[in-house]
Amino acid sequence: MAERYEYQYDIYKQRIEHALDKLMPPEEAVFEDEKVPALLSQAMRYSLLAGGKRIRPVLLLATVEMLGGSIEEAMPVAAALEMIHTYSLIHDDLPGMDDDDLRRGRPTNHKVYGVGQAILAGDGLLNAAYEAMLQNALLYPVHTSRHLKAIREIAVRAGVTGMIAGQCIDLMSEHMDPDFERLRYIDRHKTADLLTAPLLAGAALCGATASQIDALRTFGTNVGIAFQIDDDLLDIEGDAALLGKATGMDAKMGKMTWPAMAGIEGARAESKVLWEAAEKSLEIFGDKAWFHRGFAASLSRRKF
Amino acid sequence: MAERYEYQYDIYKQRIEHALDKLMPPEEAVFEDEKVPALLSQAMRYSLLAGGKRIRPVLLLATVEMLGGSIEEAMPVAAALEMIHTYSLIHDDLPGMDDDDLRRGRPTNHKVYGVGQAILAGDGLLNAAYEAMLQNALLYPVHTSRHLKAIREIAVRAGVTGMIAGQCIDLMSEHMDPDFERLRYIDRHKTADLLTAPLLAGAALCGATASQIDALRTFGTNVGIAFQIDDDLLDIEGDAALLGKATGMDAKMGKMTWPAMAGIEGARAESKVLWEAAEKSLEIFGDKAWFHRGFAASLSRRKF
Repeated sequence: MAERYEYQYDIYKQRIEHALDKLMPPEEAVFEDEKVPALLSQAMRYSLLAGGKRIRPVLLLATVEMLGGSIEEAMPVAAALEMIHTYSLIHDDLPGMDDDDLRRGRPTNHKVYGVGQAILAGDGLLNAAYEAMLQNALLYPVHTSRHLKAIREIAVRAGVTGMIAGQCIDLMSEHMDPDFERLRYIDRHKTADLLTAPLLAGAALCGATASQIDALRTFGTNVGIAFQIDDDLLDIEGDAALLGKATGMDAKMGKMTWPAMAGIEGARAESKVLWEAAEKSLEIFGDKAWFHRGFAASLSRRKF
Repeated sequence: MAERYEYQYDIYKQRIEHALDKLMPPEEAVFEDEKVPALLSQAMRYSLLAGGKRIRPVLLLATVEMLGGSIEEAMPVAAALEMIHTYSLIHDDLPGMDDDDLRRGRPTNHKVYGVGQAILAGDGLLNAAYEAMLQNALLYPVHTSRHLKAIREIAVRAGVTGMIAGQCIDLMSEHMDPDFERLRYIDRHKTADLLTAPLLAGAALCGATASQIDALRTFGTNVGIAFQIDDDLLDIEGDAALLGKATGMDAKMGKMTWPAMAGIEGARAESKVLWEAAEKSLEIFGDKAWFHRGFAASLSRRKF
């Protein structure tokens, strides 16, 4: 089972890497009106094509496949999710935000290209995500409304009631007294929303039923919060070399996290409960959810 | 004629102000899951609702009205253009970019809310622009493909072959030797693309003909470059109090501008030629382009 899952994950991942590379402009051509300046291309490519687990696009493709949709039709939407995730990392790493020097084992975008160009590379990736999804939607006139709904699912979860809301409260809450309501808001929005987005966008692309949508939303929320708690645990216990970034940053920044509030054991227990709830929410899909089950099982054991 | 134009401009502007206010979340409610954090709302509202000429949304509404479309249907698209324009100003003003302290007579966003929150307010406005347009498109199932095309027109011109490309080259070109090809690229993309966007998005919403689209594109390009040259002239000759920002910044930053390259007289002459070309491009619309003519006449004489 684990083998079948890993094999399939690699196939998805390879197709995503290929799609991302093709969607990004080449690193050439300045001053040609329809082309992207070389420096901007380079800066976007530097962060987008730096490896990474690609879990958001993988989740979208797997959801579309589980619901009987077309992988090819969904691919630009999957790629767009990774662009949005990457833009958020570039901006998160900036001075004035988390001010990080290292990401995925390499200097952060602004350390290589400067703050101004890094801001633009982030803006460019966010905008390019919408360009890719809109362009793709126009190729499928029969499914226009499904595509519009899928893009909206992503927009809402990436936006000011979603990921950006989470980042705002995360930033505001540094060095504040612990508060579970606040912590729950941060984890849910900063992280879980962009992990729920691929599930719900996949559902929208396939015209899923209301009960399927509910189940996928529950799966996404549980996976997302568990993923963030594990991330916070790795920031304390993880191997910086494996993680590709400095550890101990949360404590240094005074971040509000589960381990900081409930201790390492408390955080581990909460993560376990959430992973189990995620697994349980897949019941209505029966055997068809084999990939999603493998995903939860594999991610709950991750070391980076 | 000028009176009719000014009267109509005010009507458009009032409707846009109203739409922007309604589209922005209220300044309340943190930790309620479907709502926007108060600080993020405040930061977005601070820059979006700070006055401004609203020329991009006005151009879109006027174009839709000229082509016989529905103002109501176009309003969220118009508002989205202003959100995109405002996000670009917030990010442009950041340290690492132009590092400005004053905008529209008030401290810039990051001076009030801090760099991190200003980055997020900009990201939030860009994303909210797409949310508003997608939400609106879903209300008009008969016109879905027109809406998709309109949103794409905006996305392409706001993106990495459009405005962001212009900002990238603008930033790279500080203190470089003058180069007309480079200057033309900056003006065309940094400024003209987001002034062409409302014209072409309006055309897409109304199913305009190819010759109408060509004429509007020519109008937008000429208006946009002339507007930027006038901006650069105002940075030298303008009244800082009227402009609501410091003057002399271009020279200080070593920006590549028309006045810097061709002198004040040369820049004035170029601007005049472009305004005339803009006016001429409206011929195919006959009397129906009365507002666009008034727009060009009025903008070519602006003092702020």
